[in-house]
Amino acid sequence: MAQNRRGKQSIQFIGTSVITHWASVAGKKEGSGPLKNKFDLVYKDAYFGEKTWEQGEKKLQQLALQTLVSKAKLQLSDIDLVCSGDLLNQCIGSSFCLRNQPLPHLGLYGACSTMAESLILAAMTVEGGYADHVVAMTSSHFASSERQYRFPLGYGGQRTPTAQWTVTGSGAALVCANGVGPVIESATIGTVTDLGIKDANNMGAAMAPAAFNTIRSHFDDLSCGPEDFDMIVTGDLGELGSKILHELFSKEGISIGSQLNDCGIMIFDNKVQDVHAGGSGCGCSAITLCSDLLNRISSGNLNRILFCGTGALLSPTSTQQGLPIPGICHAVCIKSGG
Amino acid sequence: MAQNRRGKQSIQFIGTSVITHWASVAGKKEGSGPLKNKFDLVYKDAYFGEKTWEQGEKKLQQLALQTLVSKAKLQLSDIDLVCSGDLLNQCIGSSFCLRNQPLPHLGLYGACSTMAESLILAAMTVEGGYADHVVAMTSSHFASSERQYRFPLGYGGQRTPTAQWTVTGSGAALVCANGVGPVIESATIGTVTDLGIKDANNMGAAMAPAAFNTIRSHFDDLSCGPEDFDMIVTGDLGELGSKILHELFSKEGISIGSQLNDCGIMIFDNKVQDVHAGGSGCGCSAITLCSDLLNRISSGNLNRILFCGTGALLSPTSTQQGLPIPGICHAVCIKSGG
Repeated sequence: MAQNRRGKQSIQFIGTSVITHWASVAGKKEGSGPLKNKFDLVYKDAYFGEKTWEQGEKKLQQLALQTLVSKAKLQLSDIDLVCSGDLLNQCIGSSFCLRNQPLPHLGLYGACSTMAESLILAAMTVEGGYADHVVAMTSSHFASSERQYRFPLGYGGQRTPTAQWTVTGSGAALVCANGVGPVIESATIGTVTDLGIKDANNMGAAMAPAAFNTIRSHFDDLSCGPEDFDMIVTGDLGELGSKILHELFSKEGISIGSQLNDCGIMIFDNKVQDVHAGGSGCGCSAITLCSDLLNRISSGNLNRILFCGTGALLSPTSTQQGLPIPGICHAVCIKSGG
Repeated sequence: MAQNRRGKQSIQFIGTSVITHWASVAGKKEGSGPLKNKFDLVYKDAYFGEKTWEQGEKKLQQLALQTLVSKAKLQLSDIDLVCSGDLLNQCIGSSFCLRNQPLPHLGLYGACSTMAESLILAAMTVEGGYADHVVAMTSSHFASSERQYRFPLGYGGQRTPTAQWTVTGSGAALVCANGVGPVIESATIGTVTDLGIKDANNMGAAMAPAAFNTIRSHFDDLSCGPEDFDMIVTGDLGELGSKILHELFSKEGISIGSQLNDCGIMIFDNKVQDVHAGGSGCGCSAITLCSDLLNRISSGNLNRILFCGTGALLSPTSTQQGLPIPGICHAVCIKSGG
């Protein structure tokens, strides 16, 4: 078996890829929530100074990238590779962000699992000796997502109780071959899991089985368990999906209660902000990781976490054609640099 | 600098990742063209037995994957990782192909550069010791693309002379840590290049500058030139884009004439098949590589090629918003296994 492979889906890194810096840019609503003091930038303008929401999302990524590079005291030309993607059709948030920049780019699509996917690829490229400075980045935008996936905002559609609120935000992490910071220790690459959920307004339920499969595979492949982590944090299962995930573990007799958390729950105060089942979108896990979570790992408040990006691999076309929603989850074990 | 990095954008592989098998599935029109006897499967039914074109595209990938695994005398469960993506919104061709399969999946979006992107990632993961058997795969479908990017087919819109014909096909390559076959020797990861072309019916012109930049970077980073290759083959510049690429090299004083070819030109006989400026789509370069090109490298007819996947990173939304078309090109040097 390949030297760094473990079990069916997992990778044990040597531990030489370090997240030296991270940056987060958030929208107004996210900047009024529980993490409001953790973000690098908060913008009140939903267009981020651009003419359209889609171009605003591009600007979000540009702001995150600029902030990251500035925090790292680097130039854009010092970056060897950008692994990024987003939710917009043909990932135009990511492509237009990098237009005519001196930045080699690998485009990804993992729906809301993209932050975890990009971190895995960044660690692979750094440890494999292919790059020294890799940016893992993604974004989402409430207004561009609503227009594309559901209804134009001006239509004023009622949201169902199980619906989640797409986070407006972009997170970027710098993964380096040298430096000080949280270390990417291992990872589990997800399989496409589909138990037949068809309600596009209940994506937490569609993604929970994928999260369960990936976390269990991580435990199996790397001979570890919930007790080895200070936090096991899913991307955006929200309140309903998280409840299902708890039940799935409970049925298997795995006690995971106190460690389990979800970025879609952490990012909003649902009592005040009324986001129904919680936050979602690529930006949800990205700005939660690239602010509060990495800050806490860096400060020693958290020693080791399993960051589990969760993605619903639907499109409006597949939903209109009556198909269920496949889910995927990629897990990344990040530990304090010690 | 990272040990396998060369110059600003390139990677020198050790040469241990081998393309041991490849498979191609083509539609009726592609199966009537110059490469008709090279494909593993040709289907006359544009739906591939499914109810919709989108699900037909999913089936195309499933057929390519099944054919590949069968040719390699493996089971699906022997595959460690699938790197794949497609042109459909949210890449549903790829996600639905892998539903409930025991296959770890990294989803990619590189527009029509995806075959090259997936090969680069496959080689990185194999040489990095993260996997032993990796599938690089992509697809496109004429009817699903026309509906999504242009007009419903029933509308009967006139195609402009600069338009290209999206190939219906899926190609898959198996990249292994051991075995016999063409070797992935080096690669150059593209940057997002945009010279302001706005005509979504002239994607060759939008992608040609990206191809030029990547090929020139490959020469610079790896200290080589056109004379080191038996063929430098772009993905889908078509007749117009290829002409522009020739001119760009000519202006730089680089003589590249006889080696340069394009999958979008090779795949159709334009005199008979009337595809205007040539073929396009992720499947265009995928099924040309995973049939004729890899066959010829394997047989010794070609010793070393530079396979340059070219992608137009537009979406209907960005076009409607009056934005130009960013292009990207990833290059992979593949040599005979000797």
